[in-house]
Amino acid sequence: MLYIVGVGVCKGHLTERAIELIRNADVIYGSRRALKLAEKYIRSEKRIMSYNDAEYKRIEEESKNKNVVVLSTGDPMVSGLGCKLNGLIEPGISSVQVALAKLGVDLCDVIVVDAHAKKPENLNELLKFRHLLILADKKFDIKIFGNRKVYLMENLCMENERIVFGKGSDLEIKSDYAIIFVRR
Amino acid sequence: MLYIVGVGVCKGHLTERAIELIRNADVIYGSRRALKLAEKYIRSEKRIMSYNDAEYKRIEEESKNKNVVVLSTGDPMVSGLGCKLNGLIEPGISSVQVALAKLGVDLCDVIVVDAHAKKPENLNELLKFRHLLILADKKFDIKIFGNRKVYLMENLCMENERIVFGKGSDLEIKSDYAIIFVRR
Repeated sequence: MLYIVGVGVCKGHLTERAIELIRNADVIYGSRRALKLAEKYIRSEKRIMSYNDAEYKRIEEESKNKNVVVLSTGDPMVSGLGCKLNGLIEPGISSVQVALAKLGVDLCDVIVVDAHAKKPENLNELLKFRHLLILADKKFDIKIFGNRKVYLMENLCMENERIVFGKGSDLEIKSDYAIIFVRR
Repeated sequence: MLYIVGVGVCKGHLTERAIELIRNADVIYGSRRALKLAEKYIRSEKRIMSYNDAEYKRIEEESKNKNVVVLSTGDPMVSGLGCKLNGLIEPGISSVQVALAKLGVDLCDVIVVDAHAKKPENLNELLKFRHLLILADKKFDIKIFGNRKVYLMENLCMENERIVFGKGSDLEIKSDYAIIFVRR
């Protein structure tokens, strides 16, 4: 069986269900960060995974006669592994939730945009309807917001967490784990 | 101190952080369902709360000299208590996440709409951009989707969970915990 398990973004985000799945795994895959977040409960072999189709295929094969757990930082269905691997999904706390909790904004008042390694479309049109919460990396051009004031949240729950508020034109993204909040 | 703590929607959704806050509370408020989900870890007095401004104000007052935990089913920032009470938010797994995991759809490809006790606007316009995930109750008119096929998910993780797929005109919402997924 193959389980894709969200481990959250902060220490202590693991759910009871996720812990149970991790404890019962025969082998566990994940990024260095995801493995670290789940460390306390890992009893089996752990492997740092690659993120490409060949690896996904191989892991799916392996899960035919083993309990394989693939860890996903945050939630597997938030710009995560959930759509890439064919297995059972166990939700985890995403960076979107941590950001909204800090901002005091409800998910039903925003549109979440994935701008990781891609240029998002329709930002201006979407802004007519809702605030935007943009998942971004260093390559994202935050200057496009010009004089508009935005929140830039980087490395949430990591040692070097940084949250700044200012005009888009004055800000610079320094991390590949960035979230930008743009008020409607 | 006042903590608004998400307890998730399924058994076993509590995070380690949520469990810690619940264990250390002097008093715990919540709906019957939320208190049930957290039951195992409650050591203090528990109180079923009312959902009105006077109650929120009273709880905020009480938290000035006590550790007060208010439980929120799902996540406090998903059509939740997070915007109504002034306290520290601890995220939990929301029904939105459970629904997306079942559907195999990423949060960044949908717009989440709150149609609980209100008529949502712009549904047709929003559908031009993304799939919709609508949090609805019995009063929501699912027939507006006519011939369009939608998923109707009710009572996720409860005893009477029901998931159906069909034309909007053929479906009927029987629960106040309903989620409708409409493909773009």
